Amino acid sequence: MSKEITSRAQDYSQWYNDLVIKGGLADYSAVRGCMVIKPYGFGLWENMRDVLDRMFKDTGHQNAYFPLFVPKSLFEAEEKNAEGFAKECAVVTHYRLKADPNHKGKLMVDPEAKLEEELVVRPTSEAIIWSTYKGWIQSYRDLPILVNQWANVVRWEMRTRLFLRTAEFLWQEGHTAHATKEEAMVEAEKMLHVYADFAENYMALPVIKGIKSPNERFAGAEETFCIEALMQDGKALQAGTSHFLGQNFAKAFDVKFSDKENKLDYVWGTSWGVSTRLIGGLVMAHSDDDGLVLPPKIAPLQVVIVPIYKGDEQKAMISHKVHGIMQQLKDLGIRVKYDDSDNSRPGWKFAQYEMQGVPVRLAIGARDLENNVVELARRDTKAKMTVGMDNIAYYIKTLLDEIQLHMFNKALAYRNEHITPANDWDEFVELLDSKTGFIAAHWDGTPETEEKIKELTKATIRCIPLDNPLEEGKCIFTSHPSTQRVLFARAY
Amino acid sequence: MSKEITSRAQDYSQWYNDLVIKGGLADYSAVRGCMVIKPYGFGLWENMRDVLDRMFKDTGHQNAYFPLFVPKSLFEAEEKNAEGFAKECAVVTHYRLKADPNHKGKLMVDPEAKLEEELVVRPTSEAIIWSTYKGWIQSYRDLPILVNQWANVVRWEMRTRLFLRTAEFLWQEGHTAHATKEEAMVEAEKMLHVYADFAENYMALPVIKGIKSPNERFAGAEETFCIEALMQDGKALQAGTSHFLGQNFAKAFDVKFSDKENKLDYVWGTSWGVSTRLIGGLVMAHSDDDGLVLPPKIAPLQVVIVPIYKGDEQKAMISHKVHGIMQQLKDLGIRVKYDDSDNSRPGWKFAQYEMQGVPVRLAIGARDLENNVVELARRDTKAKMTVGMDNIAYYIKTLLDEIQLHMFNKALAYRNEHITPANDWDEFVELLDSKTGFIAAHWDGTPETEEKIKELTKATIRCIPLDNPLEEGKCIFTSHPSTQRVLFARAY
Repeated sequence: MSKEITSRAQDYSQWYNDLVIKGGLADYSAVRGCMVIKPYGFGLWENMRDVLDRMFKDTGHQNAYFPLFVPKSLFEAEEKNAEGFAKECAVVTHYRLKADPNHKGKLMVDPEAKLEEELVVRPTSEAIIWSTYKGWIQSYRDLPILVNQWANVVRWEMRTRLFLRTAEFLWQEGHTAHATKEEAMVEAEKMLHVYADFAENYMALPVIKGIKSPNERFAGAEETFCIEALMQDGKALQAGTSHFLGQNFAKAFDVKFSDKENKLDYVWGTSWGVSTRLIGGLVMAHSDDDGLVLPPKIAPLQVVIVPIYKGDEQKAMISHKVHGIMQQLKDLGIRVKYDDSDNSRPGWKFAQYEMQGVPVRLAIGARDLENNVVELARRDTKAKMTVGMDNIAYYIKTLLDEIQLHMFNKALAYRNEHITPANDWDEFVELLDSKTGFIAAHWDGTPETEEKIKELTKATIRCIPLDNPLEEGKCIFTSHPSTQRVLFARAY
Repeated sequence: MSKEITSRAQDYSQWYNDLVIKGGLADYSAVRGCMVIKPYGFGLWENMRDVLDRMFKDTGHQNAYFPLFVPKSLFEAEEKNAEGFAKECAVVTHYRLKADPNHKGKLMVDPEAKLEEELVVRPTSEAIIWSTYKGWIQSYRDLPILVNQWANVVRWEMRTRLFLRTAEFLWQEGHTAHATKEEAMVEAEKMLHVYADFAENYMALPVIKGIKSPNERFAGAEETFCIEALMQDGKALQAGTSHFLGQNFAKAFDVKFSDKENKLDYVWGTSWGVSTRLIGGLVMAHSDDDGLVLPPKIAPLQVVIVPIYKGDEQKAMISHKVHGIMQQLKDLGIRVKYDDSDNSRPGWKFAQYEMQGVPVRLAIGARDLENNVVELARRDTKAKMTVGMDNIAYYIKTLLDEIQLHMFNKALAYRNEHITPANDWDEFVELLDSKTGFIAAHWDGTPETEEKIKELTKATIRCIPLDNPLEEGKCIFTSHPSTQRVLFARAY
């Protein structure tokens, strides 16, 4: 593993790619725009998925699985949703290949195996799921339906970035159905809070909870809630969304229920999702020029132990001691690895685990054994310290919590320092160009103004914060009156 | 939920469909050949997946994720594999839909968005994975690679059955790379034993471990190991396969490594998988005319408690007691549900949970409270008993183990009674027509004979058991000399 990483100052975008690839998270693939998630990166995703899955189940949801393919006639049923995704969807048109008579050993699409109806590879599953819910829902007794799905989806993006924007990605999508508007709205907001809880308390990623402007709303939603995070280059990243769908999909797929008074009405819906894109945000929020910095709660490996020895006898003595420590750590539920391979020297190993963002590194040499101590290095602060071996496991358990908290507080301080008010257009543009993060500015509330600001600056309204204070002001672009500031930023 | 299930004797195939659908495991979907896995069915799959995943990790494997799509040029690289799957693969040819000018509100494939190279939706991932491994492997130090993937795959089957044969299904596929032939062979056999362990000790499904004849081998493998189970209608079901791939994929994708002497050689490979098809096998092996019978270790719900009361006061008293029992059960890790809904009567609930195969049902009435007892019903044997409330949790924990064992032993006895030797052709045909299960018969070892037997009878060689005794004999079809009996059956 090469230790050479482009620095953030030099080329932020290349720095990111270096980290993802050299840190062993993912790799480019032979398929345009698709990536391979490598074991280390997938281990990270598994930890994230397991925490989220527990949170979903604790809030009453169950998992299910719906087809990968959406027949075109279903795909086009909800008009706005169809329009939103038609431009970027992979389409299956045939179901067979055959030997190419003109090229030995090659295959070709069999023209006789053309599908009667094209199948869209799901870019999101509202259509296929609501067409299914129609069969599941007759009365209020069948509601609510609280279902989540872990799945792959495909959106044919033209410009892709590992994790942040890939043609295929992994995600979860919750799809719920309710008897009342109020209940659906409560659900959509509840899941937003679940996402914020996860981002902040597991990913150590501070987020702003808010509402999207109509321009940025999910295609087919009445209201989109989102959590927005800030990256180290001052750009924002949408980290999760939760949509109140109103009765849009129920109407598109004719899903009605009879209430207690036997009156028929359309069902109310929500959908909500987070994806492997979160990994991109995690990388960009915490890492440094030496590599990844991963929060302990979801790091695939929390502690690595490296022996420093001369000869087999020293190695055996150290290993004996380490196995005791390993057992203590594992008993406390800590994910630990002992790297006693002879393939590489300690310094190389140190650099490797630094690159991979392992929160705590222990080094143990013969002298340490004599003194009953270990050398401990923190990945986040780079602090090194000598620690007694007695009670080392409990010490580390507490330290991991401290690291988790420190990472969050550092990111929070950074984020809070990077929300800047702009009071007129010149100030707005100047702040944007200095990559200052979120800009709190007045906006006249019209889609037209937002669209024009986006055209001129590439900045979008990231959200209208949930707890936004009201304040009289004038739109930075049109000077029309406004009652609150909204958060603008350039975004991933 | 309707209690009406077709009986096995009446129509085995319809019985199976009734169980899957009325038991809440799965549903048909709007997509030809694809199914929806409902929450109860997915809960079962999650439990199976979690156990297998732990087994894979305990044997040194890590999870990763590879693209859904295989570019045609990669798909066709390994000739036999390509030939094996070309006839049944979904092909993406376009990456955009557009508004259909002739039909308002409809979409059509955009002819300008035709892919330069078609993408096959993976029917299996050897091609995409070995093309990736080429970049990961240079020297013996990079080996072995022990990677597994949980994914969806698509095989365009013409005749589909819920779980047993669907166009899209969920599975895991292990793909490993090794420096030596011996090591790869050990891996392939090791994973077969893992599958057999899982089938027998978690699914309560006895299996025969064996080797496939060349006709039934995986396309691209040098040797296919399999586990074969027997269903209640005397048909066999292949429950898992593990393939020794030799150097076939390494050669197709030019994956070489330098050994310790710096000599270049092709890498050796294996692949192995089980799928949601296992759920079909589980249903058919254990269930009865009243519904599903699920083994406790993987049942989504292990215990259900139904209160029997008149009026709110009785209900409150019972519920109070039940909450204590629930807590004791949960503390022992038992999955339990208290169904105190007022929507339906106890008898209806009993039938519902019987249909869903919940291993243990408790009923508690006011009289039971007085006597400090509960009424307990086993799903597998239908035995009912009155049990004291003290220590009920430990009693149930032991009982669940007993049920698990009883289900396995019952299935094992059935399977062992249904392996019958046939010594000539007439006997063979007669046994097949009486649906007797596996038939142990001599075979001359040629693919031609196997093919002819299949054409005439629809029976295939399910496997040559691993521990097969040698025995002189004559092929039932050609009378040519043979050294061992192999197992024939009609199969799912």
